[in-house]
Order: sequence, then structure tokens, then C-alpha cells
Amino acid sequence: MTITISIDCMGGDHGPAVTIPAALSFLQHYPESELILVGLEDVVRAELRKCKAEHNPRLSVVHASEMVEMDDPLEVALRKKKDSSMRVAIELVKDGKAAACVSAGNTGALMAISRYVLKTMPGVDRPAICSMLPNQKGTPTYMLDLGANVDCEPHHLHQFAIMGAVLVSALEGKDKPSIGLLNVGTEDIKGNEVVKATAKLLQDDHARGKLNFYGNVEGNDIFKGTTDIVVCDGFVGNVTLKAAEGIGRLVKHTLTKEFKRSPLTMLAALLGRGALKRFGDTFNPSRYNGGSLLGLRGLVIKSHGGADAVAFEWAIKRSFDAAKYNVQAQLATMIAELMPSTAPGDQ
Amino acid sequence: MTITISIDCMGGDHGPAVTIPAALSFLQHYPESELILVGLEDVVRAELRKCKAEHNPRLSVVHASEMVEMDDPLEVALRKKKDSSMRVAIELVKDGKAAACVSAGNTGALMAISRYVLKTMPGVDRPAICSMLPNQKGTPTYMLDLGANVDCEPHHLHQFAIMGAVLVSALEGKDKPSIGLLNVGTEDIKGNEVVKATAKLLQDDHARGKLNFYGNVEGNDIFKGTTDIVVCDGFVGNVTLKAAEGIGRLVKHTLTKEFKRSPLTMLAALLGRGALKRFGDTFNPSRYNGGSLLGLRGLVIKSHGGADAVAFEWAIKRSFDAAKYNVQAQLATMIAELMPSTAPGDQ
Repeated sequence: MTITISIDCMGGDHGPAVTIPAALSFLQHYPESELILVGLEDVVRAELRKCKAEHNPRLSVVHASEMVEMDDPLEVALRKKKDSSMRVAIELVKDGKAAACVSAGNTGALMAISRYVLKTMPGVDRPAICSMLPNQKGTPTYMLDLGANVDCEPHHLHQFAIMGAVLVSALEGKDKPSIGLLNVGTEDIKGNEVVKATAKLLQDDHARGKLNFYGNVEGNDIFKGTTDIVVCDGFVGNVTLKAAEGIGRLVKHTLTKEFKRSPLTMLAALLGRGALKRFGDTFNPSRYNGGSLLGLRGLVIKSHGGADAVAFEWAIKRSFDAAKYNVQAQLATMIAELMPSTAPGDQ
Repeated sequence: MTITISIDCMGGDHGPAVTIPAALSFLQHYPESELILVGLEDVVRAELRKCKAEHNPRLSVVHASEMVEMDDPLEVALRKKKDSSMRVAIELVKDGKAAACVSAGNTGALMAISRYVLKTMPGVDRPAICSMLPNQKGTPTYMLDLGANVDCEPHHLHQFAIMGAVLVSALEGKDKPSIGLLNVGTEDIKGNEVVKATAKLLQDDHARGKLNFYGNVEGNDIFKGTTDIVVCDGFVGNVTLKAAEGIGRLVKHTLTKEFKRSPLTMLAALLGRGALKRFGDTFNPSRYNGGSLLGLRGLVIKSHGGADAVAFEWAIKRSFDAAKYNVQAQLATMIAELMPSTAPGDQ
């Protein structure tokens, strides 16, 4: 079965110079895929010519006359730029022409336009962004929200937990994945009022056998792999994600400097290059690129704005997998079952 | 000039087994110091005997009959345990018998008791915890708040920025250190309402030449060293700090595993052991242990609860330096000058 993905080619720090080579590489790796490239047609076709890929039958181009800039206020992105590449790519999902959409554009705009065009699922107040981080167990830790909602109430965090559980069930084939609530300590007394109230909601779900709530987790637990899922508001999640990337770069910088210090350490680096490469691969942020916007009536995947072609291709793969494993239908079913507002009989 | 530090020997995950060896090692390294060990006298003296250090003239023991447990509710720590080692150690600062106090106990309790016993400085609403993180420039990034205030208003973050600037000026000898406001993006439109309002306050200070406000910074900027100081609320700060520690452990775990994989990589590790050791030292969380509680009428240093003796000794050093460089007096002077509430003529 062919799966079609729409791509906002103009989004991100690098635009078509990154998104189009990534799309072409993805097409080669995934023969069951088709891609719709959305953007300024001249620019997109010029980049395709540059890549000698003008005539690929699994690839089509849809023109969009505008683009959302990284610093566009939400109102401009949403109300003024009605023919932006981001919006057109999302509309293709709404119209059923694409199974999912990928964009590296402004997160706030992507979420706002997605909500406007696709609408949220019944029972969901606010969609969230969920992505993966590496951990000591070698399995990914899924974390949400990573930046869509900078101010959250307990019922939002509660919904994030449910959506995260559904995503991990679908993508990892795990029954009842464990959920941790990110806090400043593991004890019940720790945290702000929002987190404490969220813990009560999740404890109730756990007691009723609906969710596998582990309890509070701390920042270090993300990378220990204490739980399959870590739930937090979008401010904390975004800062933590970017801090993790920053440490990754600091580690690379320091390792390189230390191994270049003398002929002996350079020889060590040469002999240990396999170990160093595998080490680097574990922390390569490209591998973890592609956050799922969960809770919408359609699949939207957000790539890091600064993603290179390798990283952007991972985001496309993420959207392909989500479509293939039918995350959307599973979300709808499980949300209808789990969300209190749509299942009052559960209370 | 001799500087006396009081130590809450019972605090932290390991209590006297860590705090007392750390204290003894510190005394050896800092001949101009004296220490007051506070705790259950029998337990403290037994540990001193074990370390063969019962008769050190620069060391005294003060009995405290209670101890604050990690999961004690604030009310219990503050109102019921009036003879806790934590409280007695802080009272020694209040009474002028110690220049600073160090504790690895419950952060919330330490802050609450410090505020109750010492009171806050005029012009400061809420004391904050400030500590150091490594960055690519090789200079530390000072970050606050790291966990004292899980819910913050703009004027709190504003005060944190002022206090951080004073601390860095004093300890690093830097005139007008740069201040970054932790956010989910660098653009002015990003962030929640609290952060946006804080940015306005800091922009005003910058325009008046009072503070060196760089603007918004993101999680990765902490480890880039974009600014000398990063300001955030205690929830975000605590999660980020612990996430950084978690990644540190993941890096160590992965490097060790990869270099132990084959005889060749083991040889590489042997030849490169100098590089690997220096790399490890850069990220050793022990080196960064010791958060300053800023904004109190007395110096209090918070150690990580899980600190080992090496890390706890760093926290004692931090308190010694803060006393030596007269951070407290400089804070009082600069806060009186900078805080709007105590200098209405500045508005």
C-alpha cells in the first residue's frame, strides 16, 4: 500500500536546500511512499533540477505562493498567509490527499494552523508535540509536550499522558507503556500546583487500570529510561530538549579537542574510531528528529528548524511510520475510551 | 583571616558518612578555614573517630537532636523540628558564629528554614539557588533559580537576574556579566506570559545601563556559554540541571561500553586515557556541586542530595569562596542600588 506524505518545502532555517534532498533520499529508501512537495513552484522545481530529479513519478509539486517566516507572529501566519506552504501542506492531509504532513517551520505557527485546518480530536483540548530522546537502556524515551503549549493546566498534562501512551503502544508495540510525570523531585510533596494536580489524575487512571502511571520522575530519569514516556508542559519540554542538544554538542566539542591534543591521543582516536563513531551515533540528534503533533484530526510531524537533510529525512520517516502503523485511528479509539469528557461512564 | 563554615552533617542521601570525610579533606586543603560540624553528637563523633580525626583544633561539634528527612513536609521541617541539624547550622550563621552554612538536605526545607531564620535581604521577595554548569567556552555558565521557586512571577525572575549578576561579578571578577532569559525561542514573541513580562523588565534595566541583558536564550545556549548567567524559574532550572546530570551519566555509560567492545578499542582507550580523563573531568558533576542560596541575610550553600565526599567538598569550597569574596556585602550594596522597590528614584 502506498503512503503519501506532504512536505512543507519552504520551512526551517534552510528551506528547499535541505527539505528537497531529504525528500529525494527518502523516496529512494521507501519504495512504498509518494511525496507531495509544497512551496514556491519555481524554487522547488529549480532545486529538483539541481538534484537531477525533475521527473520522478512518485513525486508531485503543489504551488503555494507564501511562506511562514520563523519570526512571523501567529496572527500573520494564521490569518494573513492563507496560501503558505505550511498551510497548503496541512490542507492536503485534511483533504485526504496525504496521510501525513512534515514541516520544519515555526512551531507555534505549525500548531496554530494545524489546529485551525484539521481541528483537534474529540476529547482533546490541546494537541502536543511528542518526540524521542536516547536513554541508557537503548530504547527511546518519548517526551511530550516539547513546545506546543507553554502554559498548561492539569487536564492538559493528563491528556498528553494518554496521547503519549497511545503513540508508544502503536509505534513500539508496547502494551501499557509506563508514564512518568516530570517534576523537581520524586516525592508526592514536590512540584508546583499544576504537577501535583496532574499526578492525582494519573494516579486515578492507574488505579482504574487505564494507564500505567509510574509517578514523578526527574530530569535525569529521561536519560536513564526510567519510564517509556515523560510528560511535561511545553516550556519545560522545549528547554530540556534543547539543553540535551546543547550538551550533545559540548560533548562532541570536548571529545574532539581532547583527542586532537597530542600524537598519542590522535593515534588512540584512530584505533578507537569505531567506538567513537558508535558513541556519536547514539547521541546524534538527527536520529531523534521529528516530533509528532498529537491530538489533531490528521498527522502532522514537526522537524527541528535547524535540521540538515539527514535529520529532515528522519522526520519524514517518522511521519511514514505513524501513517503505516495507523497511529491516528488508534489515537481516536483509545482517546474515546480513556478521556473522561468523552466517556463519562468511566468516572 | 580565618573563615568559619557550619556544616549540616546529617543532610543528604548519605549523611555523616559523606559530609564528615568531605569536611576533613576540606580542612586539609584550606588552612585558613574552621568548620563547625552540626548533627547528632554521638553519630558525628563516631564518624570522626572512624576517620581518626577526633582532636582537630579547627573543628568543633555542635549537637542537634533532630534531622530533616528528604521527604519531610515543609511544615514538619520548619515548625516541628526546631532542633534539626539543618536549622542549627543556619542559626550559627545568623548568630555570626559561621560565615556560611552548607547542607545537602531537602531543598525546600533548606530554603524555608533559611528564610525563616535569616530573613531575606531588603528588596528581595524570594531567594534563589544559583549554580554553575560547564560550557563550550570553558568558563562556567551560572544558572538560577535551580529549584527554590517552582512558581515565579516576572519580578521574581527580575530579582534573580540582579542577584546572579552580583554573584558572578564577585566570584569571577567580571564587570556587568551578560544575562540570558531562558525561553523556548530567541524571538521576542516566544514564551509564556511570565517570561515575556520579565524580558521587558530586563530590557528596561539594560536601557538604563544597570544590567547587561543579552535577551532570550534557549536550552542549548546554557552549554554554548552564550551568556554568563541564565535566568529561569526553579522548576525549569531544576529539571534542566538534573537532565544535564542524566546526560552526563549516559555519555559515560555509552563511552565505557563502546571502548570495552573489543581488544582494539580497549587499546585505544588505554592510549587515550589522558584524553578520556580530561574529557570526564569537564563533565564531572562533582566540580559543579554547591548552589548558592542568594538573597538571604546570610550565606547558605545547598549541596546535591546525592553528593559523594568529593562533590560535598566542592560545596564547602563554594561557601568558603563566597565568604572570602564578600559576596554577601556586595549583594546588599548592589541590591540596594538596583532593586526598584528600595530605590524608587531610579524608576
